[in-house]
Amino acid sequence: MSKVELDQLRGRVDELNLELLKLINERAQLVQEIGRAKETQGVYRYDPVRERSMLDLIKEHNDGPFENSTIDHIFKEIFKAGLDLQKDDHSKALLV
Amino acid sequence: MSKVELDQLRGRVDELNLELLKLINERAQLVQEIGRAKETQGVYRYDPVRERSMLDLIKEHNDGPFENSTIDHIFKEIFKAGLDLQKDDHSKALLV
Repeated sequence: MSKVELDQLRGRVDELNLELLKLINERAQLVQEIGRAKETQGVYRYDPVRERSMLDLIKEHNDGPFENSTIDHIFKEIFKAGLDLQKDDHSKALLV
Repeated sequence: MSKVELDQLRGRVDELNLELLKLINERAQLVQEIGRAKETQGVYRYDPVRERSMLDLIKEHNDGPFENSTIDHIFKEIFKAGLDLQKDDHSKALLV
C-alpha cells in the first residue's frame, strides 16, 4: 500500500470519527430528554432491563469485525456517559 | 411526556445505537486494513501522534452535550478496541 493510499484510509477514519461524534452527541441529547421526562414522572433513571434490551438488539445486528464482547464494552461506556449526563442535569436542577 | 412519546424517543435511541454499531464496525474494518498495510511495511501499529491528532480533530468538532473529557474517554475505548483487533490479526498471521 502506498503512502497516498494509507493517507486516504486515514482520511476516511477521520470522517468516520466525526460521524460517530455526531451520532454519540445526538444520542446524548435524546438520553437527556428521556432523563428529564422520567424525572418529572419520578421514575429512577438507570434501567437495567432497558439497557439489556438495547445491548441484545445491538448484538443481534453485529456482523463484526468486532466481537460481541467488544461491542458490549464500547456501548456500556456510551450508556454510562449518558447516565452521567442525566445525573449532572439532576444535580443542576436541585441547585436551582 | 406521554408513554407513547417516551417510546418514540427510545425507538430513536435504538436506531442511533444501530447506526453507531455500523460506523464502529466500518471503522474497525478500515483500522484492520491500515494495520495490515503497516505490518507489511514493518511499521509498529500503535501511533500516539496519530491518536492525538484524531482526538484533537474530534474535539474541535465537539458541540456537546458531552464534554470533551467524555468524548476523549469514549473514543479512546474505540481506538483501543481497534488496536486489539490489529493485535489479534497479527497473532493469527504468526500462526499461519
